[in-house]
Amino acid sequence: MKLTTVKEIYKNREQYLDKEVTVGGWVRSVRDSKTFGFIVLHDGSFFETLQVVYHDSMDNFQDISKLNVGAAIIVKGNLVATPQAKQPFEIQAEEIMVEGESAGDYPLQKKRHSLEYLRTISHLRPRTNTFQAVFRVRSLIAYAIHQFFQERGFVYVHTPLITGSDCEGAGEMFRVTTLDMENLPKTEDGKIDYSKDFFKKETNLTVSGQLNGETYAQAFRNIYTFGPTFRAENSNTTRHAAEFWMIEPEMAFADLDDNMALAESMLKYVIGYVLEHAPEEMNFFNSFIDKGLLDRLNHVMTSEFAHVTYTEAIEILEKVNDKFEYKVFWGCDLQTEHERYLTEQVYKRPVFVTDYPKEIKAFYMKQNEDGKTVAAMDCLVPGIGEIIGGSQREDSYEKLKARMDELGLNEEDYGFYLDLRKYGSTRHSGFGLGFERCVMYLTGMQNIRDVIPFPRTVNNCDL
Amino acid sequence: MKLTTVKEIYKNREQYLDKEVTVGGWVRSVRDSKTFGFIVLHDGSFFETLQVVYHDSMDNFQDISKLNVGAAIIVKGNLVATPQAKQPFEIQAEEIMVEGESAGDYPLQKKRHSLEYLRTISHLRPRTNTFQAVFRVRSLIAYAIHQFFQERGFVYVHTPLITGSDCEGAGEMFRVTTLDMENLPKTEDGKIDYSKDFFKKETNLTVSGQLNGETYAQAFRNIYTFGPTFRAENSNTTRHAAEFWMIEPEMAFADLDDNMALAESMLKYVIGYVLEHAPEEMNFFNSFIDKGLLDRLNHVMTSEFAHVTYTEAIEILEKVNDKFEYKVFWGCDLQTEHERYLTEQVYKRPVFVTDYPKEIKAFYMKQNEDGKTVAAMDCLVPGIGEIIGGSQREDSYEKLKARMDELGLNEEDYGFYLDLRKYGSTRHSGFGLGFERCVMYLTGMQNIRDVIPFPRTVNNCDL
Repeated sequence: MKLTTVKEIYKNREQYLDKEVTVGGWVRSVRDSKTFGFIVLHDGSFFETLQVVYHDSMDNFQDISKLNVGAAIIVKGNLVATPQAKQPFEIQAEEIMVEGESAGDYPLQKKRHSLEYLRTISHLRPRTNTFQAVFRVRSLIAYAIHQFFQERGFVYVHTPLITGSDCEGAGEMFRVTTLDMENLPKTEDGKIDYSKDFFKKETNLTVSGQLNGETYAQAFRNIYTFGPTFRAENSNTTRHAAEFWMIEPEMAFADLDDNMALAESMLKYVIGYVLEHAPEEMNFFNSFIDKGLLDRLNHVMTSEFAHVTYTEAIEILEKVNDKFEYKVFWGCDLQTEHERYLTEQVYKRPVFVTDYPKEIKAFYMKQNEDGKTVAAMDCLVPGIGEIIGGSQREDSYEKLKARMDELGLNEEDYGFYLDLRKYGSTRHSGFGLGFERCVMYLTGMQNIRDVIPFPRTVNNCDL
Repeated sequence: MKLTTVKEIYKNREQYLDKEVTVGGWVRSVRDSKTFGFIVLHDGSFFETLQVVYHDSMDNFQDISKLNVGAAIIVKGNLVATPQAKQPFEIQAEEIMVEGESAGDYPLQKKRHSLEYLRTISHLRPRTNTFQAVFRVRSLIAYAIHQFFQERGFVYVHTPLITGSDCEGAGEMFRVTTLDMENLPKTEDGKIDYSKDFFKKETNLTVSGQLNGETYAQAFRNIYTFGPTFRAENSNTTRHAAEFWMIEPEMAFADLDDNMALAESMLKYVIGYVLEHAPEEMNFFNSFIDKGLLDRLNHVMTSEFAHVTYTEAIEILEKVNDKFEYKVFWGCDLQTEHERYLTEQVYKRPVFVTDYPKEIKAFYMKQNEDGKTVAAMDCLVPGIGEIIGGSQREDSYEKLKARMDELGLNEEDYGFYLDLRKYGSTRHSGFGLGFERCVMYLTGMQNIRDVIPFPRTVNNCDL
């Protein structure tokens, strides 16, 4: 059916004023006096609503006046400017058709509901202002990321979700199986016989696409992944979900400096894209969710990110150790309190911390000449701390092999990964951006459950 | 490091001719005479290669001449036009640095390898011409799909992968669990106690995001999903994978005609995008993989798609029943042979078949007034048959509920879905496009294993 969207009307108002338009949407509120009434209509295409005025000249005036919040209607009428009113224009309805009524027990009323309550109705919460804003911005951020990489010639690689290896051992995994749980096949020595499973072996859900991604960077030079990853960690926090999306670019012929330059320009690009394409939503967040949001994002966009080595950062932090719950020392992992101190108090802008002790970083990171540190980088931003983690990868077969042996990694599982260092190895680098953390950062939302349409967390897998 | 890409040189050659450039890439071949040699270099940024000429004036002339296929090098030199040669230009090398050698047992040699063999080295096959073309085009198709929907204001929704429901019962599912398989917790009556599992219940990998997607369409009007889906079907064919990506748009205030119009314009858009952005790759497919490919795609782009009801289609097909392995009759499901006959022989262009018998379609499809058929549509294209399946959804609470009761579906599992018909229901429609099938269609590749970077099929979960 031919309907004009509310977005189209707002964006090209001149074209529609004093003309007949037909719009479809959902009722946010109805109020009537004896001879006329007002409807606030939202059609999902745009953050703002459209006011509809209707009169008792319509046959179904009474029925319309009785509509409940949430009802779906189609309105035909004239769009007229309303210079004296709060809203810029309204529709003078000639006809209103009821597409679908809304039952009296509709769980969303005009009053403001708590985020906790809205989590219990994840199929309806996208109809509220807050979640309209969150999930439109989430969509725009995803697209901005694709656009950023595609404009620069990066190839989007779909790395696998079901995996037979445990990657870097980065956390607890979910098992994937088709075995009959009530009647598991056993081997002769009484163990479960996974050769009877769907893939003829034990399989899990991936925790990262990086190692697969590297194989494609060694063919396409610049690639990125953007897909779901999983952690079966029993941590019930506002920042952890069992299922979340990650972006992992990887570049051949690129060192740690190239990597940091990419991360910085990507963050700035995404912020710029969202500010340009969702000004209404971003103003809403700034007014109702996080008052400092726009200042913070504008500041990040216009700052040159700072750089500091881990060793220097520790020296800085040790001088103010009394401020911290966890005291820092060379060799410790940085906590959020330390990260935020660095980016908010010391540098007052985003900062890359580089060259971490090898013991606290993954086996594949490039070993520096000092024998103690690796070419890792974390990007810390005001407001949350770490948002991106990456590294230059070890490109020497011998050094990588030695480190794997040291850590007891099974060479068979990583044969393909070692091959990359045997056949045309290049210096190469990449990083990981947790998509949900990025959405939280750009919206000011404080709970990861509120930026995922249907969140999966410990004990929770609804809808 | 600052390197010029081969793509950049090809696209803006005037800017680089007779200037010094530095490129990095992998050796496709080396041949030398006594005083000079040629290297064919590929850098992953572009389908075409770059020729490098080097001379014995270089200190490492001997080392370079001994390089194996696959070695990574960085070349500095002058770009000069070669009007007499096959290639348009070449680099006169002043300096060649070896970034990473390639061991003598490099599995990719200059000869052509079979696709079957290449499947056994999925980490190296993207370095071959065929897979360079396949996976660059795969990336471009993915981006074209995002661009198509974003330009039209559709909101990208990440529907969940781990699910507690079985959606439409659409095929076998993979179980997701963190229970200790060797020591499963039991309830008092001896069953497995899933309340001890990660999500406190049984969970699986999703087979479709549609039902979740519909909840967002009823809030944002137009949405799309683009994510992985899973089937644990024990079918070892060239068209089935256990893990694949799907695109599922859903539109509120949209009927079956709107749905078909969207599908038609999406397919045309994606084909147009790929032909424009990957002409070298598409010519390669047309020459070496599928000789009729470009004609077929151009024909689809410029045709108006045909429309026929299932009932009419059966009448047409029954007249030529002797041509088919499976005889058609009203009520039967269409097989690929029937679909291809319709689109290739009868209409000679893509065709939408609509209004299928309700018994062979899903419970959520809108029931037509005849009481026998539903407002379903399949889009059939020459060369493969069905590429898209969709429908208008049942928007009447009573009819949907009655159909669910008829089929014995558990109302508790679908309460959220019924809610959509209770609170502001709208006519709405959507479809599903199997992403890999789309990639196969646009590249002419015949085996789904050859369009997925790391395919997962029965008994196969490598890397």
